[in-house]
Amino acid sequence: MRYHKIPDEAVRRLPVYLRGLLFTSEQGRENISSQNLAELVGVNSWQVRKDFSYFGDFGTRGVGYDVNKLEKQIKKILKLDIARKAALVGVGNLGSALLAYHGFAAYSFDITVAFDFNPKKVGRKIKNVVIEDISNIRTLKRRRITLGIIAVPQKAAQETADKLVNAGVKGILNFSPCYITVPKRVKVITIDIAMDLARLPYYITAS
Amino acid sequence: MRYHKIPDEAVRRLPVYLRGLLFTSEQGRENISSQNLAELVGVNSWQVRKDFSYFGDFGTRGVGYDVNKLEKQIKKILKLDIARKAALVGVGNLGSALLAYHGFAAYSFDITVAFDFNPKKVGRKIKNVVIEDISNIRTLKRRRITLGIIAVPQKAAQETADKLVNAGVKGILNFSPCYITVPKRVKVITIDIAMDLARLPYYITAS
Repeated sequence: MRYHKIPDEAVRRLPVYLRGLLFTSEQGRENISSQNLAELVGVNSWQVRKDFSYFGDFGTRGVGYDVNKLEKQIKKILKLDIARKAALVGVGNLGSALLAYHGFAAYSFDITVAFDFNPKKVGRKIKNVVIEDISNIRTLKRRRITLGIIAVPQKAAQETADKLVNAGVKGILNFSPCYITVPKRVKVITIDIAMDLARLPYYITAS
Repeated sequence: MRYHKIPDEAVRRLPVYLRGLLFTSEQGRENISSQNLAELVGVNSWQVRKDFSYFGDFGTRGVGYDVNKLEKQIKKILKLDIARKAALVGVGNLGSALLAYHGFAAYSFDITVAFDFNPKKVGRKIKNVVIEDISNIRTLKRRRITLGIIAVPQKAAQETADKLVNAGVKGILNFSPCYITVPKRVKVITIDIAMDLARLPYYITAS
């Protein structure tokens, strides 16, 4: 399968489907039609079928998708079938919220390390994670942690990204509302939490 | 223009383009090609052209898009051309981070009201917003606030959504990692901050 040919947009939707499947599975349902999955996650059903077609033939006509099987297949495609550790940089309000967030486990993620630039925060413990000084970031390679999460103020974002890249990190989730520059071998996903709010008024009719 | 015919996926990308344009504009550039805009935000250039084609003809062949003009057009489509107030429910770590977040202003949003279930938090002030008791939520209609942000623990999410709906809110940004049920007239966008991390390993080659 030529995974590299798959559009980013389809890859972007896979975790969305996965989340819908986890929800369906929690409800005790074993099968789901592309129509129902589409409705659950808010896309068109042809889109669901098209996205899955990149990876093979997952459904059975008239029966739909086997929820557990599809869940496993998507996890495998997304390489979520093995547990992964992530390092957080910046333990302010957002960083603390991320450390306390339960949702990462569903995707086999665990934030096991946290760094901060503020010496006063070093040594504090949030959800079993002891905050370390930013200088410790170079130990990531030795600790085999290849995912980094940036939750520092905007002005420190690029510097933090540079440090993560130097420490051998290959994927960065960036919560600072700015573009950061990294070598091509490193993948950055930037999250602007305000951006999702920006879609809401479109759907709201004038009062 | 039949805005109701536009796929959610295209609407989802509009704020992404807008963000790229705001960035381009900050850099002092007046024009941008669909190719460059596509690269900046991480989609294909045909996708950019297709998405904009739903709304009219924005670009000039050979010159590309006028950054400021396109910025204004997207804001108008997304109904971001007027300032909007939003109410936050739940002032824990995530809620505090949202209150302190500077990124909302770029989309003409302002979180002007915050509620919490914990009486101990009531009266505290974060970034000029005084935390109010959750019972005050019914004043939202009178205050003409139609956007709500849910940042409460998962178990309180549905109850919070019900309260927001009863208070006349028309759009909800839900940060609790669960599906919530609302009447059809209300639009909910659920954000699972872990979900974006779930895309990262796909792009990372094994070491």
